[in-house]
Amino acid sequence: MKPKEPLVPLERTVAVDLGRRSYGVRVGPGLLGAMGDAVAALPGVTGAAIVTDSNVGPLYGQRVSDALAAAGVQAALIEFPAGEASKNLSTVAGVLDALLAITPAVDRATVVVALGGGVVGDLAGFVAAIALRGMRFYQCPTSLLADVDASVGGKTGVDHQAGKNLIGAFHQPAGVMIDVETLKTLPRRELIGGLAECVKHAVIRDASLLDYIEDRAEDILACLGDVMTELIARNVAIKAQVVADDEREAGQRAHLNYGHTVGHAIEAQAGYGELSHGQAVALGMVAANRLAVGRGLLDEQSAQRIERLLNKLELPTRRPGLDADKVWWIMQHDKKALAGRIRMVLPTKLGAAGIFDDTDEQALRDAIEYLGSP
Amino acid sequence: MKPKEPLVPLERTVAVDLGRRSYGVRVGPGLLGAMGDAVAALPGVTGAAIVTDSNVGPLYGQRVSDALAAAGVQAALIEFPAGEASKNLSTVAGVLDALLAITPAVDRATVVVALGGGVVGDLAGFVAAIALRGMRFYQCPTSLLADVDASVGGKTGVDHQAGKNLIGAFHQPAGVMIDVETLKTLPRRELIGGLAECVKHAVIRDASLLDYIEDRAEDILACLGDVMTELIARNVAIKAQVVADDEREAGQRAHLNYGHTVGHAIEAQAGYGELSHGQAVALGMVAANRLAVGRGLLDEQSAQRIERLLNKLELPTRRPGLDADKVWWIMQHDKKALAGRIRMVLPTKLGAAGIFDDTDEQALRDAIEYLGSP
Repeated sequence: MKPKEPLVPLERTVAVDLGRRSYGVRVGPGLLGAMGDAVAALPGVTGAAIVTDSNVGPLYGQRVSDALAAAGVQAALIEFPAGEASKNLSTVAGVLDALLAITPAVDRATVVVALGGGVVGDLAGFVAAIALRGMRFYQCPTSLLADVDASVGGKTGVDHQAGKNLIGAFHQPAGVMIDVETLKTLPRRELIGGLAECVKHAVIRDASLLDYIEDRAEDILACLGDVMTELIARNVAIKAQVVADDEREAGQRAHLNYGHTVGHAIEAQAGYGELSHGQAVALGMVAANRLAVGRGLLDEQSAQRIERLLNKLELPTRRPGLDADKVWWIMQHDKKALAGRIRMVLPTKLGAAGIFDDTDEQALRDAIEYLGSP
Repeated sequence: MKPKEPLVPLERTVAVDLGRRSYGVRVGPGLLGAMGDAVAALPGVTGAAIVTDSNVGPLYGQRVSDALAAAGVQAALIEFPAGEASKNLSTVAGVLDALLAITPAVDRATVVVALGGGVVGDLAGFVAAIALRGMRFYQCPTSLLADVDASVGGKTGVDHQAGKNLIGAFHQPAGVMIDVETLKTLPRRELIGGLAECVKHAVIRDASLLDYIEDRAEDILACLGDVMTELIARNVAIKAQVVADDEREAGQRAHLNYGHTVGHAIEAQAGYGELSHGQAVALGMVAANRLAVGRGLLDEQSAQRIERLLNKLELPTRRPGLDADKVWWIMQHDKKALAGRIRMVLPTKLGAAGIFDDTDEQALRDAIEYLGSP
């Protein structure tokens, strides 16, 4: 028996409060086995379609299918090739073809189960949004990023050659089941990428979560069950609160863009795939912190503390050789730039954030150049 | 000057009450010319994309584009091949490609204008629903069926090889502009098809509308402006009331299926395109009326009156040689059949309807066979 794992493993449920579209996010070890009862408990369920990818399907598809069957829910398995390159309308068409070819025919009593990381959740959720003008779907995220980010918010969709996530819909799941044991098969690079979003949530909303991540960094990197359950549940609760306050992307929700304005530009400049999203966001947070310190919002000590934590989590805080001019150009041409103005989310102290439309150009360029320093 | 057209043409606005998604439907002659002011009045509009088909685009695309330009709204024109065969995900992908290729790039401040009949409204509305996770759209229906049916309800979507309208979303327009002059270029067969839905609305909700259609049948078939304005406005008001009562397709809204349960089966049996949707619905209403008379809900005199009106409007009330067995088989296998039970909407008197799940099999077969009698 490992000393740090108690006999009764921790399990948490976070409520996402959206009126009649409210749902719960359950977090804990072994929860894929609970999917049968969870889906069977939805009113009037007659069957299910598990949508997954070629990485996750072979690992967990059968387990979810068996759990559903044991609860009397027959499930078809639909698998598409893993990777961001699959996240397009053509894959959506293929999944719809498979979904609508199921016998007996799917109807609104059928539940779509999204089993996989962010791409699977976004794509399967979108399929559920547009099949039969809206089917219920249940999310089983299997990556840390999907756990703490995509599982709350109702954003579904796919990429287009003109840009990421340009095609999609808002569609809330009937429920989310996060089995923290699936993180043990997640590539380390993806685990670490997800941690950038956890740090983001802590900085904009919950300084005590920052303490927790600092204290348990080794356990987190080792994917210790109870620690991951606690970490994910706290992050889901933060995101759920932000989204409940502001379901359709005005005001509060924009705080989630902390680290993303500069981060997206760095990601685009590096070429998608070269830097992980999480690595780019870590760099973006460091740049935002420079601006916050420069404006007197954040003290230098806190900024340094965040950088140390990012490094401890194996996330980058510098990118030597960064082409600051190009990053700057990309930021100015970002679709989110409002009439040329760049909107920045900055920490106003540890655990709080604000939106700033009046960022000084030179200060922003300096912040980007800071990332390129040794 | 034609004696029946007054100097000031009639114009009507019907409010569709859906809380914060409420909108107005304007009906009158020459209203395509009012599209500029209407779109420019939407908050924050920066541009528009007119989605139309190869029939309607050449007739009215330039007029709408000019009206928008005169109001300071630059509009791109996106045209796809006319016809139900275009109503699929592949056309959606093509329209999205064109929409997302517009320079400067479309954003949520861009409005999609759907200019055309039912296929255009359903498809362009669906594109608007999924582009950028939801763009505003304005409908300019140009067929009578789209005017009185598709302009209210928020149903958007396309067909799939597995069935009609299997892919779609609920997405309400920002407004609807019905220019009754566009009906003058509508093929007569389509005009008549739309009249079946008008009779349907009258029978299930408004006996006085039945009087009006009877009185003005010749003027309606001649597409007289004021009469069409009055007819369409009254029909839109009925549909709006039904939808406002029951936005998401439970209870009340099912009354709109009057004539459609048998009608869809006849349409499928004949092969889509052989009978128009309106012709099939007319036959379906006649069959439903037989059941209603048999149950003592409707008097024989009223049933005969509806048949006479349908004939006056050049809609069929009999289909000699109809394969009643096949229609019956299709009905039993319809996706809307609940656990083998066929749900019928029957008039309970002129101007009212009810939903009946206990239809006697023999009575239903007799009603279908009645259609095949001379």
